[in-house]
Amino acid sequence: MKFCNQCGAEVVGKIPAGDKRLRYVCISCEAIHYQNPKIVAGCIPEHEGKVLLCKRAIEPRYGYWTLPAGFMELEETSLEAALRETLEEANARVTVSELYTVFNLPNVSQVYMMYRSQLQDLDFSAGDESLEVKLFAEDEIPWDDIAFTTIKYTLKFYFKDQQNKQFRLHTGDIINQDDGSHGFRAGPEQDQEL
Amino acid sequence: MKFCNQCGAEVVGKIPAGDKRLRYVCISCEAIHYQNPKIVAGCIPEHEGKVLLCKRAIEPRYGYWTLPAGFMELEETSLEAALRETLEEANARVTVSELYTVFNLPNVSQVYMMYRSQLQDLDFSAGDESLEVKLFAEDEIPWDDIAFTTIKYTLKFYFKDQQNKQFRLHTGDIINQDDGSHGFRAGPEQDQEL
Repeated sequence: MKFCNQCGAEVVGKIPAGDKRLRYVCISCEAIHYQNPKIVAGCIPEHEGKVLLCKRAIEPRYGYWTLPAGFMELEETSLEAALRETLEEANARVTVSELYTVFNLPNVSQVYMMYRSQLQDLDFSAGDESLEVKLFAEDEIPWDDIAFTTIKYTLKFYFKDQQNKQFRLHTGDIINQDDGSHGFRAGPEQDQEL
Repeated sequence: MKFCNQCGAEVVGKIPAGDKRLRYVCISCEAIHYQNPKIVAGCIPEHEGKVLLCKRAIEPRYGYWTLPAGFMELEETSLEAALRETLEEANARVTVSELYTVFNLPNVSQVYMMYRSQLQDLDFSAGDESLEVKLFAEDEIPWDDIAFTTIKYTLKFYFKDQQNKQFRLHTGDIINQDDGSHGFRAGPEQDQEL
C-alpha cells in the first residue's frame, strides 16, 4: 500500500495514538488503513463415503487437487460462501450438515472454515477454475498432489473420523516449521490427535 | 474507496473479466481491490459459573456491556486474537478450553469467533477500552444493556448449556429482521434451539 484510498495522498507506516501496531496512515487526511485476515470457506462434499475433489485450473497450485473453497465475500455468510464456491468450482449442489474445521493460517493471514456436506446428486462437473472434479475414497486420495496443507489436514481428520464413525469439529493452526514444511498445531479442544 | 492504494489513480466500480461481483478497479494500473469480511475474536471468561463482562469505554455502544473481543490482526491466529483482546480489555489471563460460537453478521460483514475460557486468577481490571469489568451470574446479566446482539446470543447459549451441563459449538447468523431488530438464524448443526 502506497496511497490513501480515500484522498489519494501518500501513506506512511506508523503506530497511531492508542494503538500498538504499525498501520498505513495517510499523511494528508490521516485515515488509518487497517488490514485483517481473510476467511476461506468451503465444503467437503460426501457421497457414499467418498469425497469430491477439484483439480485446480488456476494458480497457485495449478494441476493439484483441493476441496471446493474460496474467499468469503462481503455481506455473505460463511455457509453461503461455502455453498457458492462448491457450485462455482464443481457445479455441485450439497446439503451442509455441520462446520467441520476451523484452521488458522497465520503465515498467510487466512482462516479456513470447511463444512461437511452431502452431494444432492451426481450431476457435478468442472467449473471454470477446475480442470476436473472426481469422487475419491480414502485409499484413492492423491496425497502427494493435494494443493494445500490445510486441505490435507482437513482430509486426514475427515477419514480418521469416518473410520471412527464419529465426526466432530477440529480446530488448529497450519504453521511453518523450521525445515520449511507446514505442520499442524491442534486447537484447545481435546482429543485432536491424528 | 476512491483511489488506488498502489498507484494513486482513481478507482471505478466494475465487474472484472471472469468475476461476477462489482469491485473497485484502478483506471490506470487496473489493480482490483477486493474487500472481505473481518473476524472478531474473543473470550467468554468463566469463574465459578459466572462470566466476565466489560463495560465499553468506546463507541459504538459506549457504556454498554460486552464480552472481551476485537478484530483479529494479520499474522495472528483467532485464538491469539481472543487472548490478546481479553488481556487488553479486561487485563484478564485465561485458559481457553474450546471454540464455542461462530456467528456470521452478514449485514456488517463480520464473523464472530468466541472461545470458552477459564480465568487464571481474579486480578482483572478495566483496560483502556473498558469503563469497568465485572463477573456476572446468569441472574445478574444486564440483558437490556448488552452492547451487541451477537454477544447476547452467545451469553444465552452459554447459560442454557451451563444449565444442561453440556457445552457444544453453536453456529449461525445474526440477521436484520423486518421490524428493524436483530434475530438469530441457527447454523446447519442439529439441536440449536434456545
